[in-house]
Amino acid sequence: MSSEKRTKILDILQSGEVGTSALVKGWVRTKRQNKNVAFIALNDGSTINNLQLVADPNLIDEALLKASTTGACLAATGELVASQGSGQNVELIVKTLEVLGEADPEKYPLQPKKHSMEFLREIAYLRPRTNTFGAIFRIRHAMIFAVHNFFNQKGFVNVHTPIITASDAEGAGETFKVTTLDLNNVPKTEEGAVDHSQDFFEKETNLTVSGQLEGELAAMALGQIYTFGPTFRAENSNTTRHLAEFWMIEPEMAFADLDDDADLAEEMLQYLVGYALEHCADDLQFLHDREVEENKNKKETERPELYLLDRLKFVVENDFERVTYTEAIQVLRNSKPNKKKKFKYLIDEWGADLQSEHERYLVEKHYKKPVILTDYPKDIKAFYMRQNDDGKTVAAMDILFPGIGEIVGGSQREERLDKLEQRMDEMGVPKEELWWYLDTRRFGSAPHSGFGLGFERMILFVTGMTNIRDVIPFPRTPGNAEF
Amino acid sequence: MSSEKRTKILDILQSGEVGTSALVKGWVRTKRQNKNVAFIALNDGSTINNLQLVADPNLIDEALLKASTTGACLAATGELVASQGSGQNVELIVKTLEVLGEADPEKYPLQPKKHSMEFLREIAYLRPRTNTFGAIFRIRHAMIFAVHNFFNQKGFVNVHTPIITASDAEGAGETFKVTTLDLNNVPKTEEGAVDHSQDFFEKETNLTVSGQLEGELAAMALGQIYTFGPTFRAENSNTTRHLAEFWMIEPEMAFADLDDDADLAEEMLQYLVGYALEHCADDLQFLHDREVEENKNKKETERPELYLLDRLKFVVENDFERVTYTEAIQVLRNSKPNKKKKFKYLIDEWGADLQSEHERYLVEKHYKKPVILTDYPKDIKAFYMRQNDDGKTVAAMDILFPGIGEIVGGSQREERLDKLEQRMDEMGVPKEELWWYLDTRRFGSAPHSGFGLGFERMILFVTGMTNIRDVIPFPRTPGNAEF
Repeated sequence: MSSEKRTKILDILQSGEVGTSALVKGWVRTKRQNKNVAFIALNDGSTINNLQLVADPNLIDEALLKASTTGACLAATGELVASQGSGQNVELIVKTLEVLGEADPEKYPLQPKKHSMEFLREIAYLRPRTNTFGAIFRIRHAMIFAVHNFFNQKGFVNVHTPIITASDAEGAGETFKVTTLDLNNVPKTEEGAVDHSQDFFEKETNLTVSGQLEGELAAMALGQIYTFGPTFRAENSNTTRHLAEFWMIEPEMAFADLDDDADLAEEMLQYLVGYALEHCADDLQFLHDREVEENKNKKETERPELYLLDRLKFVVENDFERVTYTEAIQVLRNSKPNKKKKFKYLIDEWGADLQSEHERYLVEKHYKKPVILTDYPKDIKAFYMRQNDDGKTVAAMDILFPGIGEIVGGSQREERLDKLEQRMDEMGVPKEELWWYLDTRRFGSAPHSGFGLGFERMILFVTGMTNIRDVIPFPRTPGNAEF
Repeated sequence: MSSEKRTKILDILQSGEVGTSALVKGWVRTKRQNKNVAFIALNDGSTINNLQLVADPNLIDEALLKASTTGACLAATGELVASQGSGQNVELIVKTLEVLGEADPEKYPLQPKKHSMEFLREIAYLRPRTNTFGAIFRIRHAMIFAVHNFFNQKGFVNVHTPIITASDAEGAGETFKVTTLDLNNVPKTEEGAVDHSQDFFEKETNLTVSGQLEGELAAMALGQIYTFGPTFRAENSNTTRHLAEFWMIEPEMAFADLDDDADLAEEMLQYLVGYALEHCADDLQFLHDREVEENKNKKETERPELYLLDRLKFVVENDFERVTYTEAIQVLRNSKPNKKKKFKYLIDEWGADLQSEHERYLVEKHYKKPVILTDYPKDIKAFYMRQNDDGKTVAAMDILFPGIGEIVGGSQREERLDKLEQRMDEMGVPKEELWWYLDTRRFGSAPHSGFGLGFERMILFVTGMTNIRDVIPFPRTPGNAEF
């Protein structure tokens, strides 16, 4: 390998000085050539922008230029000069060229043309090499870092809650079983049941659906914690909004009520969006322009009211609307689509579960901003949410985003042992399995609150993508576990 | 809930001003009382240090003081005064006291006495409330943040590689199966095999043992990436060094050789340890003192040569020793324990796999510093490691730490398609399952390198703990998946 150090293209484009020499390495995006000059757009993943290599076919070996096809990996040395029109400040006049890895144009799937998102999903192992997915995954990284930065600055402790768990007591959905039993010959007990005593953990285990309950344990010791890990749902949902494997962020705060919880969530969401605007300007501009381009032939009524960058700025610049479920029901009941029977599910009575169409109406049509809906009927919410004094509602909140729907779900937790046990009995949640959770209410209980942010939904919002399979590197959905 | 905002004990102890009033909330660690005064040590998880509450039994309701037992949760207001001897600058003269949650001393498992680590493992859901585990988990958080900070500053992109995968082609060990099939009645094909077409992913799937292969895909697009996620091994190892579920950090760099790889690993490890020294001073001091205390009755020969803080400083202040496997074999062959047959496995021939006893000899006795061992025999290393020109070795490295053994394992990857395929054939790795991995060598291949850091081993080193079950909140081991 060359002993000269390569310079990242990001650094060259930001601060490369005309007249200096450089070694760059990266992959060919496009090549244009005539008999006097070859232009090669080189990308190394450090930025969405390419460095233009300018090569003289009379000086550079013809075979090398010929092999510099789309997807090939090159190392090039040369001198930086002011750019003549590549859209960047500088370009590189090639002195030496080396082909590190070829990419046969007859076989390489990613050619310099527009590929459908469906096709790119099939070659998920190559799609980070496209402009769109390079941008998405750099933004995803920035959001991961921003999440940690946000909570770290506030003194929250990141807790790795377990992925393999022995209980599905939360009842958040269907789970994946985890086992080392031989499926060809499952051992059975004398009674004919699966003999999990021979399993690795000597009991039935599954993949976690949420780290919340364990997160609460940690918050009752460390005060303020957050989780950031993968969670799993084995629901057979083939939609643009569901993944079988996705990442969740779940903060939990001792000594916090629902207002504190909503404050934290709003501050976090605004921080994340603001961080993206500050740190991902080039990638966001690309995705913004892409969205404008995709919509330019649509009728005006079908175009988004705001394009990506404006949607992001809107979230940062506006307070979220805080509305109780009861108020929202009144708004919906009196809404045009309800009166004109345009909703699929008409809103008639207090207690109805809100559907996506209702959430979108509230956010996109009525309040025209992110909405924090609070104090839901207890019967449509989880057992651990704190019961309000009205006997009907719980101190829950959902945060609804335009285009995305629910992006955050949280609540104040029921810290009173008797109320919690009563609710578990009513809802059929097995108390004996959750003895450790109940113990936190027996020993040093305290008011506390938390929420869950679906990370991929956040990335959908920040990138403007519309299919959740396009914001995680290797999506897992029914029938799909490739790579 | 009180509308006055609570102040964290960390902030009060760092910058609380005498004469100001404050509201604090936390859990009672200890209480001492006579008829004139009650001293309550309160901890809220923000720091290992307690705030001393000073209450006058003549002013504060007797029932409240009585209920303020170890583990109870309190809210207290009062005035900060200069401390008379609690070991801190300030203490709080209590004006009002509220018991948020009691902890019946007859039943609360954590009493103010020394509990064994074994007992605390059984109550892992409560152990973050102890000084030792509070310190460990705050340090673990700091290390998580430091990992992200280190890579983010260098322009690495964090990639979430999949947890559920369809191949165990890497052959890194036994895996956990993931399934939604009914284990009571596993569907079979006509040939009598398990019918995975009816499974959620329509094929056999398992939990990942490493994100490396997918990480390589991303590095071949984004240049420099890292993973940080859970990995799983279904090995029936009941040791102090193995977990069934643990977290790994796996950076991967395009355009990097083994030297670059070792440079990155050394810089990262020194950064992490330095970060801990800078940001976790109180917690480290506590663990250091604990270690000194635990060793004070041991014979001098059984005591560690360096205690925790000195071990950490040693790593930051000294370059790691870089040694080839071949050199290490010579050192070991000529070593006293080999000549005197004190090693369990004597080192005789080049090609032997090094055991823990050999690694510890090299690190702790011979070089007396962290060692980077490179260029191992290819037959004891994985198929994807780059073959050296000698035909015998591969460009692999292991980093060995005192007391821990292997903390990092990495290599330059074989980027040459023909060499890689030949090695896969020799080692029986199914090429058809890894077509996508091979494609990265077909299209735009480039030299690249990476490594894996076992996060819990790092936390063992930084905290001085000796059992890996004590550095992860909820350890998973054979027979253990509680909480």
